[in-house]
Amino acid sequence: MGAENATRVAPGEVGTVACVGAGVIGGGWAAYFLARGYDVVAWDPAPDAETRLRHLVDQAWPALTELGLADGAGRDRLRYEPELGDAVGSADFVQESAPEDLELKIKLLADIDAVTPPHVVVSSSTSGFGMSEMQGRCDHPGRMVVGHPFNPPYLIPLVEVVGGAATSADVVAWTSEFFRVAGKSVITMDREVPGFIANRLQEALWREALHMVAEGEATVEQIDLSITDGPGLRWPVQGPMLTFHLAGGQGGMAHMLDHFGPSLKSPWTRLVAADLTPELRDAVVHGCGREAAGRSIDDLVAERDRGVIAVLRALGRVP
Amino acid sequence: MGAENATRVAPGEVGTVACVGAGVIGGGWAAYFLARGYDVVAWDPAPDAETRLRHLVDQAWPALTELGLADGAGRDRLRYEPELGDAVGSADFVQESAPEDLELKIKLLADIDAVTPPHVVVSSSTSGFGMSEMQGRCDHPGRMVVGHPFNPPYLIPLVEVVGGAATSADVVAWTSEFFRVAGKSVITMDREVPGFIANRLQEALWREALHMVAEGEATVEQIDLSITDGPGLRWPVQGPMLTFHLAGGQGGMAHMLDHFGPSLKSPWTRLVAADLTPELRDAVVHGCGREAAGRSIDDLVAERDRGVIAVLRALGRVP
Repeated sequence: MGAENATRVAPGEVGTVACVGAGVIGGGWAAYFLARGYDVVAWDPAPDAETRLRHLVDQAWPALTELGLADGAGRDRLRYEPELGDAVGSADFVQESAPEDLELKIKLLADIDAVTPPHVVVSSSTSGFGMSEMQGRCDHPGRMVVGHPFNPPYLIPLVEVVGGAATSADVVAWTSEFFRVAGKSVITMDREVPGFIANRLQEALWREALHMVAEGEATVEQIDLSITDGPGLRWPVQGPMLTFHLAGGQGGMAHMLDHFGPSLKSPWTRLVAADLTPELRDAVVHGCGREAAGRSIDDLVAERDRGVIAVLRALGRVP
Repeated sequence: MGAENATRVAPGEVGTVACVGAGVIGGGWAAYFLARGYDVVAWDPAPDAETRLRHLVDQAWPALTELGLADGAGRDRLRYEPELGDAVGSADFVQESAPEDLELKIKLLADIDAVTPPHVVVSSSTSGFGMSEMQGRCDHPGRMVVGHPFNPPYLIPLVEVVGGAATSADVVAWTSEFFRVAGKSVITMDREVPGFIANRLQEALWREALHMVAEGEATVEQIDLSITDGPGLRWPVQGPMLTFHLAGGQGGMAHMLDHFGPSLKSPWTRLVAADLTPELRDAVVHGCGREAAGRSIDDLVAERDRGVIAVLRALGRVP
């Protein structure tokens, strides 16, 4: 790393964040960083970008205020700059949230790279491209990393962090720690997978939903209701793996896979199932065991029930 | 319908429910119906069935009590019968929740059919078989219907109701109304689709998750965290369709599909995407419009934000 690393601030010392691209995601990031007490400088090439950005921040602000602002946080600490170089020149961290267009991203990241001090980490909100595909024209590809948020970035905690082939491992670690300090829930991936993790999962669901609409098997409204009133009530409480851990009764995931494994051959989705090898079976069973971390099935059932009730009540759906 | 229908009680007049099969799902149903003030008679061939059933009901009872029991509801209104005929003979409604084994279900439904008064509706909790596959050996196939719940049936509102080829349309309507009266959120499907709706969607996600574990792309814990801290926080509030309606900014689903449509060709899941024809595009856009029912994007954003905050707070994840 050497000289490039010499002046990079510690993750907890970041004071100014540059948001490059100020649409729904970039504007949401700007609102989030402002609420967490950062100075935010934004740039976007659209003619009405500043107006739209300030609308997005205003729209997010009641939610952020309700959640509690950091000391000194304020919307007056947002500055819009019409020139990219002026936006990133004083930043300790850059978050790029341009439209999802590979050529555009490649060029924009090179432009950012050219005008951002080389020790500053540049993170992309891309929802599916790998940094290896995007960093090729940068002179300093080592500081380019993916930090993929979920809409709205000011409320959904998850950020997936993953580097490209030319990204420094230090930068992946620094970025993960920066987002943690900034209050996010971070998954650091050790390899590039198209769509990362959560987007692959929701994309599989989304594609099946589109197939169902295309075939007349379900309406848009039925699809949404089937999730909001069904499995969607469990997922903020326990993920899909722990959910199925409990579907196996006292036998947990082991029972589930050993008994329902054959249903993987059923045409329950257009996605062909993984081959349930003994290795995969064991990986899933042991993963659930690690995640349960000593909690019994009864413990997990009680946690789930408390969580689902809390969610239902929070949404005003039960007294 | 004639004679068979002559003595069927109205959906709101059901007093006694028979639960055939008393595992995690059947026991969960028993607990739910007890809490809603029904008399419940249960049968299960396992030697320790009654003990397990009473454990399941006891485990569910604190949650059900917290949500509020119906007048007169009580666990003392649960009766276990060692003979199937004694369990179903006095029931106004039968819910079958046997293991997911087609041959077993076909035989069990025929057994139930033989000893249940012919006017009584028999509903199956099957998570994926169509009633057409299961009702073949019944003398009264017209009263056989699928009523598919989600685990735990005593907390998750959704029930998917769908008949088989030989099911009477009256029975589908009666069953939908019965579950509504009993407090469930009902989707009535007009055709059989393997896995119904919600299970197809969560199965697509589950299969992609298994592929990721099999390929070493993500751990079990990362998969769960990616959902509980990511899209899972939105799904109890707005389903996948409305979620993406908001991903398009002010342009909504139309903008989303017109701009992100090409990403359907990306390898973001192993599920091949639907062909985004103009017809499919319009069906999805118009469906979101119907579901929004006059609410603007800003209205929906505000609703989502209130909902996600309520969920986060309910789960103790924000102050």
